[in-house]
Amino acid sequence: MALIVQKYGGTSVGSAERIKNVAKRVAQARAEGHDVVVVVSAMSGETNRLVALAHEMQDIPDPRELDVVLATGEQVTIGLLAMALKNIGVPAKSYTGWQVAVQTDNAHTKARIENIDGGKIKSDLGEGRVVIVAGFQGVTPDGEISTLGRGGSDTSAVALAAALGADECQIYTDVDGVYTTDPRVVPEARRLDTITFEEMLELASLGSKVLQIRSVEFAGKYKVRLRVLSSLQEGGNGTLITFEEDDNMERAAVTGIAFDKNQARINVQGVPDKPGVAYQILGAVADANIEVDMIVQNVGTEGTTDFSFTVPRVEYRQAMELLAKLQDSIGATSISGDDTVCKVSAVGMGMRSHVGVASKIFRTLAEEGINIEMISTSEIKVSVLIDEKYMELATRVLHKAFDLG
Amino acid sequence: MALIVQKYGGTSVGSAERIKNVAKRVAQARAEGHDVVVVVSAMSGETNRLVALAHEMQDIPDPRELDVVLATGEQVTIGLLAMALKNIGVPAKSYTGWQVAVQTDNAHTKARIENIDGGKIKSDLGEGRVVIVAGFQGVTPDGEISTLGRGGSDTSAVALAAALGADECQIYTDVDGVYTTDPRVVPEARRLDTITFEEMLELASLGSKVLQIRSVEFAGKYKVRLRVLSSLQEGGNGTLITFEEDDNMERAAVTGIAFDKNQARINVQGVPDKPGVAYQILGAVADANIEVDMIVQNVGTEGTTDFSFTVPRVEYRQAMELLAKLQDSIGATSISGDDTVCKVSAVGMGMRSHVGVASKIFRTLAEEGINIEMISTSEIKVSVLIDEKYMELATRVLHKAFDLG
Repeated sequence: MALIVQKYGGTSVGSAERIKNVAKRVAQARAEGHDVVVVVSAMSGETNRLVALAHEMQDIPDPRELDVVLATGEQVTIGLLAMALKNIGVPAKSYTGWQVAVQTDNAHTKARIENIDGGKIKSDLGEGRVVIVAGFQGVTPDGEISTLGRGGSDTSAVALAAALGADECQIYTDVDGVYTTDPRVVPEARRLDTITFEEMLELASLGSKVLQIRSVEFAGKYKVRLRVLSSLQEGGNGTLITFEEDDNMERAAVTGIAFDKNQARINVQGVPDKPGVAYQILGAVADANIEVDMIVQNVGTEGTTDFSFTVPRVEYRQAMELLAKLQDSIGATSISGDDTVCKVSAVGMGMRSHVGVASKIFRTLAEEGINIEMISTSEIKVSVLIDEKYMELATRVLHKAFDLG
Repeated sequence: MALIVQKYGGTSVGSAERIKNVAKRVAQARAEGHDVVVVVSAMSGETNRLVALAHEMQDIPDPRELDVVLATGEQVTIGLLAMALKNIGVPAKSYTGWQVAVQTDNAHTKARIENIDGGKIKSDLGEGRVVIVAGFQGVTPDGEISTLGRGGSDTSAVALAAALGADECQIYTDVDGVYTTDPRVVPEARRLDTITFEEMLELASLGSKVLQIRSVEFAGKYKVRLRVLSSLQEGGNGTLITFEEDDNMERAAVTGIAFDKNQARINVQGVPDKPGVAYQILGAVADANIEVDMIVQNVGTEGTTDFSFTVPRVEYRQAMELLAKLQDSIGATSISGDDTVCKVSAVGMGMRSHVGVASKIFRTLAEEGINIEMISTSEIKVSVLIDEKYMELATRVLHKAFDLG
């Protein structure tokens, strides 16, 4: 018998029928002897509907009031799921964020969880009930309704698991685990039984989109055993996210290949090679709230250097216009860019102790005639920026080169 | 400068456009120098949608969980209205039932308000804000979400007005006041500038359906000045509901004519004329949760009596079956009924001091050849039960007979 926190996303609770299916799954875990706490999202489509209504009221909806409106989505789901459980004879009780209470800071629409009082939940579990908690929401120190931002329900689940000392936090989603790469691109892609926390972080931020990145960080911080499972198919153990390196096992150098098409490259050429120039360029970009991903600066020659970075594609135009205005003050000879690029990355804890991962990537891509525009590396990741037309090909050949199939 | 509580129902906030119109109306009251507290219902259709979802989960939805689901309807409206007000430059803040807090008893889906702490609201008003409160909902002593039942938003508004010592509670609805009778039946029907609390109670319970009856009782108990106004048309003073008899004015004998088609008559004939027989019959009906409206028992002859009463039409079959089973134990000679009847009532405070109202009703109906099946009277009301096909005719001729046009 264990204490399990299960989280079901919007698609998993997207209709009356699906909520009933979730109830069955929860009942099954309980029949196996487990204590179960369930965290749910709003029914799919509901949050978008509410956001649209808010935007009809105000161009930029007031954050406090937006949270009041958005928090209703999850509140509907918890009540419905409690009914569905009672309907099949399972005692259940629902709680909103403020009832539990999920204490957050005051940052409306992107609040951070500060504390959860598990008292009520533990007492309900002790009385044999399934406890259902609204994900995505909490309450501020002033008693106002807060939300955690999109995907926040994953974080709610992990935070609850941490607060309750749960044995496992299970994230049910529309995929059945974490794969070596996207199976739609590489049919040979293989589901990973385990993945390390660090690898998951890289894969999530690189666009694998299986788990919200904040939830993974949270799980790492509080050492919550996290598992990704499919809510749509029966059985299977999904992928377990681990936090300790298994010393007994020689890990594969590369665990998975991630790719991301939401990239645009900007090159600032011939800028004076002196301290402060990087800040001058990126400071302006950051001030405009444009996110920067890869950043590369080559060693300069003849007192000047080239500076390159990538931004999300939707912000490419804005960034280019911004830099055009700055060109003179920066002293750049030219500014160019390309918004038809993509990023392909090899991720793996094993990289730390294996040499040659980067060179294998470069050779594999060269053999296919794929030109590499930018390279960026971290301890457990090698990313290359290439022409987007080669994205699927590069992913396939790298997946094969590292024997991931 | 006054403190006004305004309440807008589901139709008045039924779309983004209508919520913006409510915002304009609130802004106008504020521009006139008033402090304004707004109580709103769920957008029209929303409560029905949520109830339908709940019924897909459970045949009889768990009351606690149903309240969790239903309370979201008003929560969406308060947030949207706050945004709409801010959008036109009016400082505003929304509160759910638990935030205010509207303390209720534990009777989920039909809770009664026990206390409201006006502190937060007064402090917001003091800072120049419009305060928006979710109607229909509250919080139980255990911190659970409760709802007041259909139409409960009227009660929320009156209770808030009482707690805040508001100068007036304005109920905005899709009619512009209380009429002498339904204008769809009698085009000459006239809007009343004032109506007494007692008359309003009779008119509401007789099917005028302008205000929820509990809210009128509440207003009477706490002497809240209550006004019914149209949310759809500009201007007009609506109808003010008063609580003190105006001694200076000779009130008209009859203020309005109400009618109600939701009636079925049941006659139990030839029952022994002895103590306890009324209880024997009505006790069984009450135990089956069937509401009884008019009750008439004639003086008996030869040791037996006839006993008649009316029930809502939808419960007619059930009541008849119930009584058929009881016939022998009651000792009735026969049981008959009719579900094609209606009730027409003349209501007026002036009846107390005027004789002849009842006789004028009987004469007027007799002149039209309308047979009266049952009669029931109270201090300020005379009701007759007649064949439903005469309902409109009876209403028209009575409206004319009492010079209400």
